[in-house]
Order: sequence, then C-alpha cells, then structure tokens
Amino acid sequence: MSAPFSFRLLAVDGAARTGEISTAHGVVRTPAFMPVGTQGAIKGVHHDDVRSAGADIVLGNTYHLMLRPSAERIAALGGLHAFMRWPYPILTDSGGYQVMSLSPLRKVDEPAVTFRSHVDGATVVLSPERAIEVQILLGSDIAMQLDECVRLPAAQGEIERAMRLSLRWAERCKRAFERAPAGRALFGIVQGGDDFDLRQASARALRDVGFHGYAIGGLAVGEAPEVMRKIVAETVPALPAERPRYLMGVGTPADLLAAVARGIDMFDCVLPTRNGRHGLAFTRFGAINIKNAQHADDPRPLDGASGCPAARDFSRAYLHHLFKAGEALGGTLLSIVNLYYYQELMAGARAAIATGRFADYAAQTEQEWSSKRDLPTQ
Amino acid sequence: MSAPFSFRLLAVDGAARTGEISTAHGVVRTPAFMPVGTQGAIKGVHHDDVRSAGADIVLGNTYHLMLRPSAERIAALGGLHAFMRWPYPILTDSGGYQVMSLSPLRKVDEPAVTFRSHVDGATVVLSPERAIEVQILLGSDIAMQLDECVRLPAAQGEIERAMRLSLRWAERCKRAFERAPAGRALFGIVQGGDDFDLRQASARALRDVGFHGYAIGGLAVGEAPEVMRKIVAETVPALPAERPRYLMGVGTPADLLAAVARGIDMFDCVLPTRNGRHGLAFTRFGAINIKNAQHADDPRPLDGASGCPAARDFSRAYLHHLFKAGEALGGTLLSIVNLYYYQELMAGARAAIATGRFADYAAQTEQEWSSKRDLPTQ
Repeated sequence: MSAPFSFRLLAVDGAARTGEISTAHGVVRTPAFMPVGTQGAIKGVHHDDVRSAGADIVLGNTYHLMLRPSAERIAALGGLHAFMRWPYPILTDSGGYQVMSLSPLRKVDEPAVTFRSHVDGATVVLSPERAIEVQILLGSDIAMQLDECVRLPAAQGEIERAMRLSLRWAERCKRAFERAPAGRALFGIVQGGDDFDLRQASARALRDVGFHGYAIGGLAVGEAPEVMRKIVAETVPALPAERPRYLMGVGTPADLLAAVARGIDMFDCVLPTRNGRHGLAFTRFGAINIKNAQHADDPRPLDGASGCPAARDFSRAYLHHLFKAGEALGGTLLSIVNLYYYQELMAGARAAIATGRFADYAAQTEQEWSSKRDLPTQ
Repeated sequence: MSAPFSFRLLAVDGAARTGEISTAHGVVRTPAFMPVGTQGAIKGVHHDDVRSAGADIVLGNTYHLMLRPSAERIAALGGLHAFMRWPYPILTDSGGYQVMSLSPLRKVDEPAVTFRSHVDGATVVLSPERAIEVQILLGSDIAMQLDECVRLPAAQGEIERAMRLSLRWAERCKRAFERAPAGRALFGIVQGGDDFDLRQASARALRDVGFHGYAIGGLAVGEAPEVMRKIVAETVPALPAERPRYLMGVGTPADLLAAVARGIDMFDCVLPTRNGRHGLAFTRFGAINIKNAQHADDPRPLDGASGCPAARDFSRAYLHHLFKAGEALGGTLLSIVNLYYYQELMAGARAAIATGRFADYAAQTEQEWSSKRDLPTQ
C-alpha cells in the first residue's frame, strides 16, 4: 500500500514558506529544486551525484520519454524509478511545453495536440487522456496536466484561447487521472501569459476543479524577468495555501530567491546543468566563467568552504584546463557544482524560513554574489 | 624523503609473474593495467571512479600536457598529482608516440624532434633532455625515455635507423634524469619494429645503459596481432627478470592475457574508455555492443555478479536507451564498466599466478568470453 500524497506546511515567513511533500517514494523538502532528467538521465551527471548534491526529487520529460524509449517500454521495465535507478520522488511534466519548443510541426485542436516526432518524424497525437496515461505508465509521483504553452509576447486573444483550452484539458486530465494508482498526485497549471485577469481566472477555475498542487506555467518563455516576478507575485495569492506551488522552468539563483519570497515551493530548470556544461559555475560568490583566462593559474578551488567535493577539491586552474582541453569531465564537475549550489540555496532558504529570517538570508546571499570575493587576492 | 623506487617479484608461473612496484605515491600491483589520462583526466570518468575500479596507477601524456596547459604551469600548481588530484602513482610517456600520431608536421634529427603543435600551430622542439625535464616538472613517478616510433609495416633500414636513434636518445635521457628528485624511475623503450635481431640488439643495449624498467614500444601501430605476440614472446627473454616490463599501448583483454603469459607486467591502452564511449562493453561474457537493438527491452544488467555498480545495477535496456538518446552518461557508465573489467582481469591474473594456475585462468576466461552467456535466456 503506497503512502498517500500529502503536503505539510512547517513554517511561514512573510509570503515564503517551508514544508514537506510526502510521496510513495519519499519526502520532498520545500522550497525544492528539481534537477531535470529529460531523457531519464540528468545530463552528464550520475544519479548518485545528483542525490549527493541534496536533491529530493527529479523531473522527467514526458515528451522525450514517450518518444524514446516509449512509456510502454519503461512500464514493462518496471517504471521510470526502476529504469533510471532513481528510487526517490519523480515529477513528470505533461509534454505540452516540449511540443511547443521542440516539435517541427504541430497542430493544436480541442481533442489533442498532433505533432511530428523530432526523433523519427512519426506523427504523434497527445491528448489530455494520453498525457495522463503516459505519466501513469512512467509511474511518476507527481503528474502534470496537459496544457498549451504560448510563447511571449503574444496577442491577448491568443493567450486567452490557450488558457481556456488548458482549463478544459485540466478537467479531462483530472477525470483520466481517476485511474491512477493510489498515492499519486496530479497538478494543475495556471496559464494566462502576462495578463493579470487571465491568470486570476485560470487559477480560480483550476481551484474549482481541484488538484493536489498548482503550477504556474507559461513563464521563462521569453518575457522579461520583472514580468515573470510580477506574474508570480500576483498569481500566488490566488492559489490555495494548503497545496504546493510549483513555478515551472525557472530559473537563475536570483529568480529562485525572488519566487520563494513570494510563496513558491517547487522549481525545475536546466540552467545548472546546461550552464555547467558550458563552463559557468554558480557559487556563493556569484557566477564564475571558468573558461576565462584569469583562472588558468589559479590554485584556489571554486569554494573551499563548500560541502561539494567538485567545488572544494579541484583548483580553478584544473577546471579551466578541462574546458580548454575539451574534456567532458569539466562539464560534469561544473554541473555537479551547480546542482549542489542550487540545493544549498534551497536548504538555506528552508532553514531561514523556519527561523523567520528569510529576508535577511536572501539579502545576504545576494550581497555575497556581488562581493567579488572570488577574485584572486593578489 | 621519498621512498625509493623498487620492484619485487612475488611469484612466477611459467613466464607469467606477479609482483609489486613501490613508488613515492604508493604500490602498483603487477600485472597492472594503467588507464590513460591523456590531458590530466581519464576521458569522461571521475578520478574517484577510476580508483574505485581498482587502478593503482594512471598514465599521463607528456605531449598533450606540455602543449596544454604546459609543464611549467602544472609544476607551479604543485605537479600533476596535485593538479589532477590523483595522489597515487603516475607514469608519463615521453611524447614520442604522439608526435608521430598527432602532429601534422614533424622533423626528426639527431638532437631532437621538431613538430607543429596540434593545439595552436606553434613550432615545438622536443629533445631527449626536454622530454625528461617536462616529466620531472610533471612529477611523474615513472618517466619514459624519448624514442622514435615507426609505423608498421616499414622498411628494415628505416626501422633500424629509428631504433639506433632511440638508443642514443636513451643514453641522453639517462644522463638528463640524473637531475630527477630521489625516488623517481626512468624506463627505457625497446624498439626494432617486427625484426627479431633489431629487437634483441635494442634490448641488449638498453640493459647496458641500465634503467629502472623496460618497455616494449612500437607495437599496436598497425601490425597483425600475431606479429605483436611473437615480438613480445621474443623480446621478453632479452629483458632483465628483476625489472618491470611494460608493453606500451596494448590492448584488448585477449592481448593482455597473452602478454601476461609471456612475462609482461604493465599495460596502458585507451580501449576501455574509447570503446566505452562508443557503446562497447567488455564483460566476463565477452564484448557486448549495447547499441544493438536486442538490448532495448533487456532488464538484465551487463553482469549481475560484478562488483562494479555500473555493470551490476543498470539494465541493458537503460544503457541502450542512454546511447540511443545521446546521453553522455551512457559513455561514462560503459567506460567505468570497462575500466573495472580490465582491473578485474588483472586482479584475476595476479591471484592465479600467485597460486600457479595462470594457464587455467586464461583458458577459462577466454572460454567464458565465447560462451554467449550474455544472450537472453528466452
């Protein structure tokens, strides 16, 4: 018998909050950052290192996995947890965002989105019911409704049309999810672009349908950072306090702190691994481009006080060399550095919220980013 | 005070032998396989995983490291052990082989080889004295003489000219090495192509110069496997029994067993990592091409009885998926599988030699490779 899905608030500090999501595969401490395991792997990083970095949960992409190796194949192999050997919580998205961003040809109709697979060119139909079926087959602890994501800026009419369609799909997903095994959760996704009224209407309607948690979708799709923050600030109060809130696809460390301050509980983003592969390290001292020539002779680690071996033990000179020499180990090490830093940031936020000092924590963290303490002392 | 370099034979079984090389950075159990860390990193694999796989020693490439990031830079950063954070024994080659295989333009004269750097096009002069200086700067426990390596097949006159030059360079390297800190070792390299008399003459002359160990070079350069095995069998008796013998750049698991049977103590080769990146796994059941479609639904690990987590814990279906999806983790996991298997093969050889049953061990191992036990049972 699987443990039921639940969310427990532990402390609130202004709008920021810390809590625990319980799933059949374990507890997720919130605010939580979810590393992205698009194709059943976090790019370039071994699962053991993802776990050691402090991750409670990872994200899997329905779009990629349904196309390759296929949901049915993963189900036959015991589900995504067993397939990728990640026995901890997994959230899967619904595929809607990737259909928009990756598929060369797509057509959105009331029943479903039809698109051309980027893997083999096959025509694929993804309905709300199929998106849920796939996520049930994958065995994810938290499934997401299928939605239509609109790239910003967009005309208000287009934003509203997609938001209304996403709402109708939300209801169909809810019904389809009745067949899910006990203990699994389904989240609704607030759409509405950069329009206050549409976001409010979306949130209200989703609450009426009723979900285990609520995501804010359709952001980090081209809008300015201040637009994103404004929408988050406006939308959060429209969501039920007793359910987890998930800001999809966001973001930089500064984005995360800003969103936690406004009451967001969960995040996912490819930035830590993508930037790591390209030589950008996130540290307590801000972002460091390890490919810059100034690091070539620097014997210091990225952060000698870090608990992350990759940040603490290797010299900047060595990491610089790995990137200059094209050694894949460089990207792996910096991805680990970044995943660790993101988890450390969330752990710091949780501890600060629990003791009512989140605003100080955020201010001090941002000050340290710009202190240039990473520069050589001579 | 560094411990002196020494070699101790523990047991002999026919021509095969097992022993221990002691260095300032620890003991190397022989027969030993050295993973190749060309540019200060074993491609795609974290040093911790190289060590966990059972490696006592790794190889660094003088040619690559002198060009980037440069020997002087590595020395300023504390030497290669500190730079790459491998506190165990390191052997460096002399650069001669890479000059032949990688440099677009090169000219070999009595004083030195002059070549165009493949990194930045600069003209570089590598003399025997400079090859030793670079290796002293790197801080390697075992340095190799500079030699000229000839690709086979080649005219006898050309092979002899290169062999005689390599001998004169051996003497110059020996003199230059007098400035090395205590505890470091220098190996000579037998050349002579596929010519019995030249190999014997080379070995004899190197013994007269006197080295801490002797390598057989100029093999795995295009000759047939049986040619390589014949030359090894003929050359080993000409080398002193009380010094380690190193077969450079070899080879497949079968090559290793054949060479151990003839009295070789040390190996290096890029095969485990290169083949791993390309989807070929070395296992007790022979080589497995994980990209083959037959593995797509196979829930079994590569080897459920292996002590290697990558071979034991992940399904073939998952590893197959990682390669099909282009996830770098696949190459990393198979590189670890292969490094582990090579070390396991050497550990098995050492144990068998110690108890006088190496011939049985080799025969059983080869039989298992061809038993097709890796095929699905249904």
